[in-house]
Amino acid sequence: MADLGDPVLDDDDRHHLARVLRLRPGEVVTVADGRGGWRRCLLGPGGRLDTDGEVVHEPPPDPPVTVAFALTKGERPELAVQKLTELGVDRIVPFPASRSVAVWEGERALRHLARLRRVAREAAVQSRRARLPEVADLSPLAPLLEEPGAAIADPAGRPPSLARPTIVVGPEGGFTDEERSLARDLVRLGPNVLRAETAAMAAGALLVALREGVARPL
Amino acid sequence: MADLGDPVLDDDDRHHLARVLRLRPGEVVTVADGRGGWRRCLLGPGGRLDTDGEVVHEPPPDPPVTVAFALTKGERPELAVQKLTELGVDRIVPFPASRSVAVWEGERALRHLARLRRVAREAAVQSRRARLPEVADLSPLAPLLEEPGAAIADPAGRPPSLARPTIVVGPEGGFTDEERSLARDLVRLGPNVLRAETAAMAAGALLVALREGVARPL
Repeated sequence: MADLGDPVLDDDDRHHLARVLRLRPGEVVTVADGRGGWRRCLLGPGGRLDTDGEVVHEPPPDPPVTVAFALTKGERPELAVQKLTELGVDRIVPFPASRSVAVWEGERALRHLARLRRVAREAAVQSRRARLPEVADLSPLAPLLEEPGAAIADPAGRPPSLARPTIVVGPEGGFTDEERSLARDLVRLGPNVLRAETAAMAAGALLVALREGVARPL
Repeated sequence: MADLGDPVLDDDDRHHLARVLRLRPGEVVTVADGRGGWRRCLLGPGGRLDTDGEVVHEPPPDPPVTVAFALTKGERPELAVQKLTELGVDRIVPFPASRSVAVWEGERALRHLARLRRVAREAAVQSRRARLPEVADLSPLAPLLEEPGAAIADPAGRPPSLARPTIVVGPEGGFTDEERSLARDLVRLGPNVLRAETAAMAAGALLVALREGVARPL
């Protein structure tokens, strides 16, 4: 919702509240702008929203954490985006790796990205996140690994740390030697071989746990 | 595979190696007994296995970690079992909660459990785990919460620790007050509201990270 000063439900949300959640006039609805702002409202007749409290602004997460994952086939990128959004990851970057089987180009890439952004929005609503994660456009691997604090997920790496708040997860067949040579740092997620989307989820769970005081770095 | 002394492929595995992975005679195949033992073999003609090294026994994980999750609808229990197996969780316990929408009873429960065990086996092969997780029969909640070190996942809880190696994840609508009153301990996984299967994965990722020296408890 763009404007918390005068919140208005769009048709999809009105339908969702009335038909799926079956809310009645007078019930409480919390609306968010996706940028950390939220406000309590009461559902009015005809799907109108009556504000019922001031706008609250949540401070931005510090540091923001990023998970990048190599494109995979089927619905697994959607699953990764849904779980990373729920977990509280701030930026999600899909990228094509040399061994990615899936190819997203032109129209196809735009369609996939639009779908991933819808999945992120739905997951943010479901998990009551006031801040939407950024689902970035496809990025080539090299500039991603040049970002400060970017590291490739690799069993030979160091433990996760907020000094390395961007974890880049390779495709099923792994990175090529050439791709791996671009990494300035490696981070290990655990002892096992993980599917790409599982590694992305583990990376997100661990980075957010470190930031939120649920675990400490080694 | 039951016997690493004289390893024999069953029909499914022979088909998988020949048709899906397209391995040729002479290629290396690592076989495991699911109880921590594994052995290098070479694929012989006609799908025979020729041993090519001694049996290696991996020590049991210390401590073993358990994730229990409330039954949910659709394929989400399968997804949870797949991810928990890859992550390295040792015991997975599905249980019916008061607010579980899904009901597994009689034949239906047996069919679901058999399916979950197949999913665990496939995920163990995929992630090269030499030890299969136990997918337990359905358990009522009360005895589960009486196990030493069992805790309910709850935002009001303490950080995860290996002193609490069993995390019990409630259904979408949460535990009832009565169910919650059975818990001797609560563990928090992070700041957000998580879907049941996402909470199960986060619990597994964090417990295994603590055990494997990837993160420290708070």
